[in-house]
Formats: sequence, C-alpha cells, structure tokens
Amino acid sequence: MTTTLLTGITDLVTNDPTQAATGAEDAFLGRLRDAAVVVDGARVAWVGPADRAPAADTRVDLGGRTVIPGFVDSHSHLVFAGDRAEEFDARMAGRAYEAGGIRTTVAATRAATDEQLTANVARLVAEMHRQGTTTVEIKSGYGLTTRDEARSLAVAAQFTPETTFLGAHVVPSGTTPEAYVEEVTGPMLAAAAPYARWIDVFCEEGAFDVDQARTVLAAGAAVGLRGRLHANQLTYGGGVLLAAELGLAAVDHCTFLSDADVDALADSGTVATLLPGVEFSTRQPYPDARRLLDAGVRVALASDCNPGSCYTSSMPLCVALAVREMGMTPAEALHAATAGGAAALLRDDVGVIAPGRSADLVVLDAPSYLHLAYRPGVPLVAGVWAAGRPLVGAPHTGR
Amino acid sequence: MTTTLLTGITDLVTNDPTQAATGAEDAFLGRLRDAAVVVDGARVAWVGPADRAPAADTRVDLGGRTVIPGFVDSHSHLVFAGDRAEEFDARMAGRAYEAGGIRTTVAATRAATDEQLTANVARLVAEMHRQGTTTVEIKSGYGLTTRDEARSLAVAAQFTPETTFLGAHVVPSGTTPEAYVEEVTGPMLAAAAPYARWIDVFCEEGAFDVDQARTVLAAGAAVGLRGRLHANQLTYGGGVLLAAELGLAAVDHCTFLSDADVDALADSGTVATLLPGVEFSTRQPYPDARRLLDAGVRVALASDCNPGSCYTSSMPLCVALAVREMGMTPAEALHAATAGGAAALLRDDVGVIAPGRSADLVVLDAPSYLHLAYRPGVPLVAGVWAAGRPLVGAPHTGR
Repeated sequence: MTTTLLTGITDLVTNDPTQAATGAEDAFLGRLRDAAVVVDGARVAWVGPADRAPAADTRVDLGGRTVIPGFVDSHSHLVFAGDRAEEFDARMAGRAYEAGGIRTTVAATRAATDEQLTANVARLVAEMHRQGTTTVEIKSGYGLTTRDEARSLAVAAQFTPETTFLGAHVVPSGTTPEAYVEEVTGPMLAAAAPYARWIDVFCEEGAFDVDQARTVLAAGAAVGLRGRLHANQLTYGGGVLLAAELGLAAVDHCTFLSDADVDALADSGTVATLLPGVEFSTRQPYPDARRLLDAGVRVALASDCNPGSCYTSSMPLCVALAVREMGMTPAEALHAATAGGAAALLRDDVGVIAPGRSADLVVLDAPSYLHLAYRPGVPLVAGVWAAGRPLVGAPHTGR
Repeated sequence: MTTTLLTGITDLVTNDPTQAATGAEDAFLGRLRDAAVVVDGARVAWVGPADRAPAADTRVDLGGRTVIPGFVDSHSHLVFAGDRAEEFDARMAGRAYEAGGIRTTVAATRAATDEQLTANVARLVAEMHRQGTTTVEIKSGYGLTTRDEARSLAVAAQFTPETTFLGAHVVPSGTTPEAYVEEVTGPMLAAAAPYARWIDVFCEEGAFDVDQARTVLAAGAAVGLRGRLHANQLTYGGGVLLAAELGLAAVDHCTFLSDADVDALADSGTVATLLPGVEFSTRQPYPDARRLLDAGVRVALASDCNPGSCYTSSMPLCVALAVREMGMTPAEALHAATAGGAAALLRDDVGVIAPGRSADLVVLDAPSYLHLAYRPGVPLVAGVWAAGRPLVGAPHTGR
C-alpha cells in the first residue's frame, strides 16, 4: 500500500471539529487553509497544515484548489427506464397533464431488461461521480411487483451498499391498498431483503397513511432492514412524527411541518433530509431549513434524482438552492450535503476527512468552498477520489 | 478544407424555421429528429434528415445525442481581478455589508497586471466553452480610468469581437458625476474606442441618469460605437424608454417595467436581455419574461458573469432559471439563449445552425434539448465546436 501526500490545498473542509482553525464557521466545518492530506490506500492517514505534513511515497500538488469531503447523496431513485421530459415540459407550460406520472416510469421499468436498468444506473452514478458524489443511496420503487422490486434492488446493490426497498412507493393499478401492503410486507419484502439495507415508505395523502407506513416499517425491521420515510412533502401529515417516534435515521422532504413536528425531530435526532431539486423542478414551496436548524434539528441535503419530480443529480446545485431558497449559509449547506448525508445513512466513515475515514475527496477548481454557492451551475469539480481511488479528473494538473 | 458529416443526432435544434418539422414548438426551434449536419471548414454546409445526408470527407457518429447552436452570451463582465466570495457569504447570511462592493473589484483590477487580467479572462472563457458558450460579449467597467478602461478592452479584444466600453459603470471615488461623464466621453472614450464595438451605460439610481446615459451613448455613436444599456434592474426608471427611443440593439436587466416600457420595446424591436443569474445570486425578484414574450418583445438570456452580483458563467443554468422562475417554456428559453443573444449583438452568423452560418455546435449528452431545463445543474455538454473547430470534448465517442 502506497501513501500519497495531497498538498497545495488553499481551503480544506474536513467536517472534523478537532481540525478547527479560527472562527465559528471554520470550527463548524473543520476548515484549514494551506493544508495537506495524506492518503494511505483507501483511508485518510493524516490531515493538517501543509508545512507540517509528513513524507509520503508520492506527492500531488493541487495548485491552490479547494478540497471537500465527497458528497453523500442519501436519497435517489436511479433504477428506472425512460424519462419524462415531455411531462416536465407540459408542467412548466402550466398545461394540465393527467396522463403519465409515476405509472409511466413503472411501465417502462418493468419492460426493461436487467442490463438496460444496470446501464442506466451506471450512467447516472458516473454522472454523480463527475459532480463530486462519492456515496449514494439508491431506492427501488418503480417495479412494484415482487419480481421487479427484487431485480431493481439487485441492480442497485451492484453500485452501493446503501440500497433501499421502496415497494411502498405508490399503490399500483389493479390492486387495493390493503392487498398491496400485504404483498409488500410478505413475498415482496422476502425477495427484496437480501439486496437491501433500508426500507422506506412514501407516507403522504394519495400514497400510504401512517398506519400503513408503520406496518411496512415494522415488517422491514423484523427482517433486519432499517427504516426511513418520505413524509410531509405535499401537505401536513403524521409521517414526521412517526419517524421521530420510531427513532428512524432520517425522514425526507419535510416541507410542511407543524411546531410539534419540528420539536419531535429535534428531540429524536432523526435527520431531516431536504431535497430542494424537487421544489425547483415542480415549482413547489421550499422547506424552511432555517427553522429546522434554529430548532436544533440535524439537516441533510440530497438530490432525490428521479425521472419525475426531479431529474437533477447535482449536489452542487442542491447546495446553491439551499442557500438561495432555504435560508442556509454556504457552510451549513455544504455540511448538510456531506456530514449530514452521512448521518442520514448512519455512516461514520464518510462525509468527513479525518484519519481512519474513507479517502473520499473532491477537488474544486476554486479558492474556497464558498464558490459552490457563489458560482451556481458552474461545474467546479476538477477531481474526485473515492476510497483513495481516482474516479474523475487529473487533480495533479497545475492550475 | 475538409468536410465533416455529423450524424446520430436524435434531436437537432437549428433556430432555422425553414428546417421545421411538425408542431408549433418544432417550427419555432427549427427542430429535426434523426438529423445530420455537414460542416465545411468554419461554416455549416448542410442540415437535414440523416437519411438524406450527402457524403463528406469524415464522419462523426454522435450516438443519439442532441445538438443545439452554441450559446450566445451577450452580457458579461470578465475583465477583473480577485473575487467577492466573502461578500456573497455575508449577503446570503443577511448580514449588512457596507464595505466592499464594486469598488473592491475596481481596486483589485487596477492593481492587476495585463497578464493577470488576461489569465483570468482566459480561465472564464474556457469555463464558458465547456458549458457550451461559443460567442461571448465582454465589457470593461472595473477600470474607471482612461488607462484601466483601455487596457481592460485590449484584454477583452483578445477573446471576442463583441467588446463593450462600460466606463459609465459607476462614478468612481474622488470625482463628481459631471466631471466623470466628461472624462468618459472625452479621453477615456478616445482610448477605449479602438478596442470596442459597443458602448454601454449603467442607467440606474445611484449610477447614471437618463440624460447622462444619452450623452455617453451619443459620444460613443459619434466615434462609431453601437449602444446598449443596463436599465430598470433595481427600480423603475427611464432607461428602457431611452433604449427604445434610440433603437438600441439591446437593453439589459428589465426587471421593473411599466406598460409603456413593454410597449416601447415591442414597437422598437430592441431586445430585452434578461439575466436570471443575478436575481438568483442577490435574492431579487426575477423579471417577467412571460409578460414580455406575450407582448411581442424579443427576449435574450445572458449570464452577466461578474464577481459581484452574479458569478455564474452557466448558460444552461440561465435556461433552467428562466423556465423555473420567469414563465418561459424550455423552447423559448433555449431560443433566447442562442438566437436571442445573437439578435442582441446584431449578429446573423451565430445562434442558428444553417448553411453558410458559423459552425458553432454544442453536443448535449441527452436525448432532447428539454433536458437543459429538466436536468438543472447537470453538466450535459459533451462536446463543443466553435467555427468548425473542436473546443471541448470528444463528441465522436459513442454513447
């Protein structure tokens, strides 16, 4: 195993408060100027000021760039076929569009071969890598049959350990909610569980109610799947309180929250995962991140990449939207998109650059992390390393 | 001179109505499916259905991608030094920030060498190329002395013929508006004119009033510079009416418009250039593109890339914001970002893919142009050719 010294880092964000420089923002981010990192195989071995860096087998000069932890995208729906660009076009023109919707994607996904589904996930994961995402959660939920949910998860498991069984996405045509919940918690769960770490339910009017969500999560827990929820996206409801009551790792969307919801999140420690790309692409109101942060709730940002409500895979865009629209500072937004996502996935090996953690590093062609929000839309990612392996770019190229 | 056949184009947007397929949107965009383009040197030689394409010396299969005209970014301020990331951070946190502002950039620009200014423009122009911009207008306006405005334009002229003298950006410290207008229209204009095609004034409360703008534009016209204006960005004012009265090619920002302003724009044919990146980065209200389009006003989209109010260089982001925030359809937004920009610069050789026009082509890694708005933030540009020369990417790579 060889060691590599990365130096020439003008701005290093570690999310490790023990690395704090001066200032509240720096302490929050574990921010160091003129820093260096030593990578040993798949792990970080050393982090500190460049002028105190130890020797290493090889040396890479980043030429005055910024290094941040790889983004942790804790919410995506990448296993699908087809797209819904025409539906998006109609929605943006304000035209009514009754046809289509999620059932369009379900039909296309069922009709696709495993190879086609795998190729589509591979394309999107590569696209995420190029934008700095090094950990991604992937859900099923466009199969909605035992066969199609299981094979969706088998495809996802080729790309990430963070796979989520979302059979309870919507009730498919031709069945009742009661019968479908029985199927989801019975044969579908049995077939899906070998490929899944998590179980999720879309707890919303028109999808599954709180009692149904409770039933599905309990069935998942009985076979060792940890729970997470989609809740309070389109209106007020009981999903967030259920997530807090059960002590789930995360509850996602959180746009419509009562004071009791916010208090419950703060008390339970359940991460509120906000998905601003959805609000951007559907012209819905954004969740109020400021209110959550001020109440002491842990916040994550994720892409929700899916072909219907949000087909962005860009965590940098999510950071910029969180700052523009949701009252987050650039520091809070970057933290939520890295360490916040790690907390939402109960992972302590990612989202932070510190000795012993996974060497998931993103090089930004910018003098400071602030440029993620200050330069929206600009592809700033110049290099990506995941578990010490270069995925993207030639970060040794001088500026 | 060799000819090149580009084929494998699932979606071709030409902005040439004579190439119309079926449907209103297709006619508006000159949209063809399963198309081909022949490039002869720096020019387009042929456009049409792939199955009727003529032979050429070489053949490039784009593997089912989309081709659009290169973006025409008709408004940018790239000649400067330093950045203002900390000011942006403070603004997003809602903290008062009296210091800094444009004078910070003026001081840094005056202190920079020609080589430093050139390197910064080169970096930003390369970044624009990677995002599909093949024509860019560049303004001076951070020098504000005869020497510094002239050298700013000499730097800009190395990169584009669309250079704009913006000595009348703000009144610098240590002088009066009256004395400064005399300087701008006298020695500064004389020194700047050899490097400029255009003259521009920031006509807004706190900058220059309508009479001063009229004086500056008249002085420019007397030495052969065509006029354009910044107007009606922060409040109502007379700038838009002045632009229409003078028949200027374009008036930029256009956020606060009276009915008389809109009527005057429709009657004069002056292009309203909208800059949604500014509103994104300053949390200001967006201009109402729908109102302008419905009144028959010609609309362009541009980046306004500058270190203060908007440090994005991304025309794809401007398209996505125009759709999300300004009531434009994806077709209208793409048209405004290409053909609209060309009209704003009085250019008939760019912004359109048609025989005899400049071969400025952008390859999108997407099955349709709709993905520019449907997939916000995702770097979809897979290849760029400017005047027939490959600038970015390897567009012959199969998908």
